[in-house]
Amino acid sequence: MTRERLAEMVERGLVTPTGLISHGRGEAYDYLMGERSTDAALEAEKAAAAYLLNADNPVICVNGNAAALDPEGLIRLAEAVPAKLEVNLFHRTPERMEGLISYLESKGAREVLGRDPDCRIQGLEHDRALCTSEGIYGSDVILVPIEDGDRAEALVSMGKKVISIDLNPLSRTSKAATVPICDEMSRALENIQRYLGELRGDHEAIIKTLDGFSNSENRRQTVECICASLKDGLDGGDD
Amino acid sequence: MTRERLAEMVERGLVTPTGLISHGRGEAYDYLMGERSTDAALEAEKAAAAYLLNADNPVICVNGNAAALDPEGLIRLAEAVPAKLEVNLFHRTPERMEGLISYLESKGAREVLGRDPDCRIQGLEHDRALCTSEGIYGSDVILVPIEDGDRAEALVSMGKKVISIDLNPLSRTSKAATVPICDEMSRALENIQRYLGELRGDHEAIIKTLDGFSNSENRRQTVECICASLKDGLDGGDD
Repeated sequence: MTRERLAEMVERGLVTPTGLISHGRGEAYDYLMGERSTDAALEAEKAAAAYLLNADNPVICVNGNAAALDPEGLIRLAEAVPAKLEVNLFHRTPERMEGLISYLESKGAREVLGRDPDCRIQGLEHDRALCTSEGIYGSDVILVPIEDGDRAEALVSMGKKVISIDLNPLSRTSKAATVPICDEMSRALENIQRYLGELRGDHEAIIKTLDGFSNSENRRQTVECICASLKDGLDGGDD
Repeated sequence: MTRERLAEMVERGLVTPTGLISHGRGEAYDYLMGERSTDAALEAEKAAAAYLLNADNPVICVNGNAAALDPEGLIRLAEAVPAKLEVNLFHRTPERMEGLISYLESKGAREVLGRDPDCRIQGLEHDRALCTSEGIYGSDVILVPIEDGDRAEALVSMGKKVISIDLNPLSRTSKAATVPICDEMSRALENIQRYLGELRGDHEAIIKTLDGFSNSENRRQTVECICASLKDGLDGGDD
């Protein structure tokens, strides 16, 4: 069903063909983690909720794949934090920008930034760097689902707390992020939202959750989970 | 470059959007194996060469992704064995069949089977089962690059020796195959061809290579290689 939806979004020009290949890479990791949120993913999702609650200007960054996969989940989380939504594309054209922002609006988003960029992400070339001062540029905590490594690293270099959703625990994005969530995007968004409810208003718990999180330890747990799943899968009948 | 070529083949209708997602899954495994032929892959590729040399009617099965990725490699191997080429599609339409066969012919293939199917692969429904008596149906050894699990299992059930090229060592295809090659297709084709040269004419070596190969032991080695690579990658700077 997800695959059909993505294929349809390619026809509408909102997802690129290379976006489909990228989605396939994610599917392979998701399969290796048993297509469920691992304990490591849940821990990262709780830390993400803590960072979002502790932020002054939290922003959720949306690209073509993310919008195609779960626009409602992105909008719900933005309202729950509350955080701003900004569309930011690797393959940026005015048509794709307008198409994706309109698509999110058609799904109920009240305000989507990105139409009128007035800033650039430092260290990135070309139109990929374009963003808004109100949103990405001025954010202190930023959630980037399915981000490319260059942009994730550039955002970290600008001093932002970066929460990534990327199924590959070894990607440059996962390595660079403050909180690397290795989980399927819809599950991740839902889990973060649940933890928002758990942590909201409890400043002590928020700070404890932030402080207790380690990128490298979390990714190590994810890798162990993948290896265990691979070894289990050797003899099972599962595809 | 490969990604651009696949995207172009989608525009021409020869590769399906879901074929791009499937390619992405393969890329993830290839990345986990260091984008090189592992020792386990080389062993399987040697066994594949032995089976092909020992065959009475060897056939190389070609689908949209395989044709898009490396038509020249497929044609070269077919000529080297020699083996027949047959196009066989999951999403079969007369236009895609004709398009792919013409594409292979434009790349120099002398004869490509599949235009006029007169048989069915037992145990498969719909048009996916269609094949030719001269080719797939009458084959004793069949090389299936990037095959789906159902068809690989059905071919094994018909008593054929199945050599698969599938980067996922846990897929139903890899589990069902006589020889599961977990390697990128172009590298696999090239390695098989090199082993053909090594083994040709040496009946004793051919039989020893066949007899010494174990599907489950080979896939176990592949999984160990992936786990080692994941653990190595945790601290490296590689993407």
